[in-house]
Amino acid sequence: MTVLILTGEEDVTADMVVVHLNASSVPVVRLDPADLTAGATLSGEYAHGSFDAQLSCGGRLVSLSGLRAVWVRRPGVPASRAAQPSSWLTEEAAQALYGMLGGSGARWMNHPDAARRARVKPWQLRLAQRSGLPVPATLITTVPQAAREFAARFPDLVVKPVSGAHPQEPPRAVPTTRVAPDADFDAVAYGPTLLQRRVDKRADIRLTAVGGTLLAARKEIPADADPDEVDVRFASSRTPWRAAEVPPGVEAAVRAYLRAAELAYGAFDFAEDSEGTWWFLECNQSGQFGFIEVETGQPIARTIAAWLARPGAPVAGS
Amino acid sequence: MTVLILTGEEDVTADMVVVHLNASSVPVVRLDPADLTAGATLSGEYAHGSFDAQLSCGGRLVSLSGLRAVWVRRPGVPASRAAQPSSWLTEEAAQALYGMLGGSGARWMNHPDAARRARVKPWQLRLAQRSGLPVPATLITTVPQAAREFAARFPDLVVKPVSGAHPQEPPRAVPTTRVAPDADFDAVAYGPTLLQRRVDKRADIRLTAVGGTLLAARKEIPADADPDEVDVRFASSRTPWRAAEVPPGVEAAVRAYLRAAELAYGAFDFAEDSEGTWWFLECNQSGQFGFIEVETGQPIARTIAAWLARPGAPVAGS
Repeated sequence: MTVLILTGEEDVTADMVVVHLNASSVPVVRLDPADLTAGATLSGEYAHGSFDAQLSCGGRLVSLSGLRAVWVRRPGVPASRAAQPSSWLTEEAAQALYGMLGGSGARWMNHPDAARRARVKPWQLRLAQRSGLPVPATLITTVPQAAREFAARFPDLVVKPVSGAHPQEPPRAVPTTRVAPDADFDAVAYGPTLLQRRVDKRADIRLTAVGGTLLAARKEIPADADPDEVDVRFASSRTPWRAAEVPPGVEAAVRAYLRAAELAYGAFDFAEDSEGTWWFLECNQSGQFGFIEVETGQPIARTIAAWLARPGAPVAGS
Repeated sequence: MTVLILTGEEDVTADMVVVHLNASSVPVVRLDPADLTAGATLSGEYAHGSFDAQLSCGGRLVSLSGLRAVWVRRPGVPASRAAQPSSWLTEEAAQALYGMLGGSGARWMNHPDAARRARVKPWQLRLAQRSGLPVPATLITTVPQAAREFAARFPDLVVKPVSGAHPQEPPRAVPTTRVAPDADFDAVAYGPTLLQRRVDKRADIRLTAVGGTLLAARKEIPADADPDEVDVRFASSRTPWRAAEVPPGVEAAVRAYLRAAELAYGAFDFAEDSEGTWWFLECNQSGQFGFIEVETGQPIARTIAAWLARPGAPVAGS
């Protein structure tokens, strides 16, 4: 039973996991969907009520019925390295690849449908609430008056994009930013704006969930830190990430979130306030983990490898 | 409790359903997501573990918690009629709208996640097999030799796109076409190709599923029909659509398909062979029904209106 990894050629994070899979003698096939029709081939047959398909890449041939798990890491755009790429060919190749893989019965980390849904922040916030995670008061609006009233009730706000990275080439992360007290909200009418009560945090928390294993890391905020540095991705980094215990209430809520979202992997970001409460900020279903593993020594790559290698019944959604 | 219809301004099929909703005095709000930030506004607040949002359009204000159902008909591209449209604004508006609607608890026809998955034909074929529907032998391949061997076993083939309509402006339907006996399959290497055993059909079947109601229509093939006219959408139309009984085995299988696909609406196309077997060709989750209703007199619009108007608990996936 083979593990299929969908990713580009240069992916050191995938390499970290492959090392562990190799050590366990688990067969691994690595495919970049960009190579379809130019290096990689795919062929599937439906007949007499059954289905089987073969994938070949890098000189390896694998039957889809022989896949135990598919790890969707950083796959390229399907068929984008074809001799004559086009949006039509990409769509045909994407549906052929993911449509046939979806019929394979393999377990997914993460299933593309679950991944797509899990990226939507307004949906994340509601699911976090329903799962029992504390969510800072948040407004998503195109109505300037609603923004003004919200700012009157919650004077200390941050603003962040609804949808994440800006889709320029290359995509650009938009930092979460503090809202000035005298902010003019008129421009809210021109695009949905996400305003959130700023958590006066004493630490950033990254909780990496791999199947049933939860690995939390904590990065303390120095006492003299600039309160305008609200986004950990862009803050000056003087304190290290350190492994942390997951409070029992958070553990149950995170498990409920993952179950409802049908995610096998999730990187949760929390802000820890002065009373020790972990406030949910977001869950990135493809969040990087290499920097956490390096700083904390937590065995994230090995845990992912063990999840991928585990024989087992297909999960819901596969 | 209001029914929200997401569609463009000119949609006579939606009008047919609205007539029935109006007759039942069910409040209806019609929104084209293209109008967001230019005519339509949206505002949602997450606080103290709960969520509520308001949508305004056409002078109407509706609370998302007051929605009983959302009908996704022919929605425009979000914010595409904004003063300064951009792909970034579209993404922000799409996530704000669909992300917040997804947290509303309303029933969906169809949920966007289920709809997206249900469009993928390789996935449809596998689900049809698993649901117990007969599927004509099908090959999806980028391997010329696989195509040649399949054609040797099934000499009478049709070819069709994997992904449906070609994405030109306006999108163009690609007809299903018969494969000539001496076809050269070399070009299969340049893009995934879907080959399917041609069903020697005596009738086309369109089965429209609305919730638990299945309405089948049958269009007989004239004895002197051109056997190269395999695609009912492009064939000359000398015989009318007539209401037909759904065979019990098909009924159970179609219900299993809809349940697994989490679809409230589906338009199934079958080919009926000379022995009366209905062969599954596809299930279009947004298939048109106006022409069937007009020719057969089947109350499809009224059934949709009744489904949308029904009070009831949220379904899975909402």
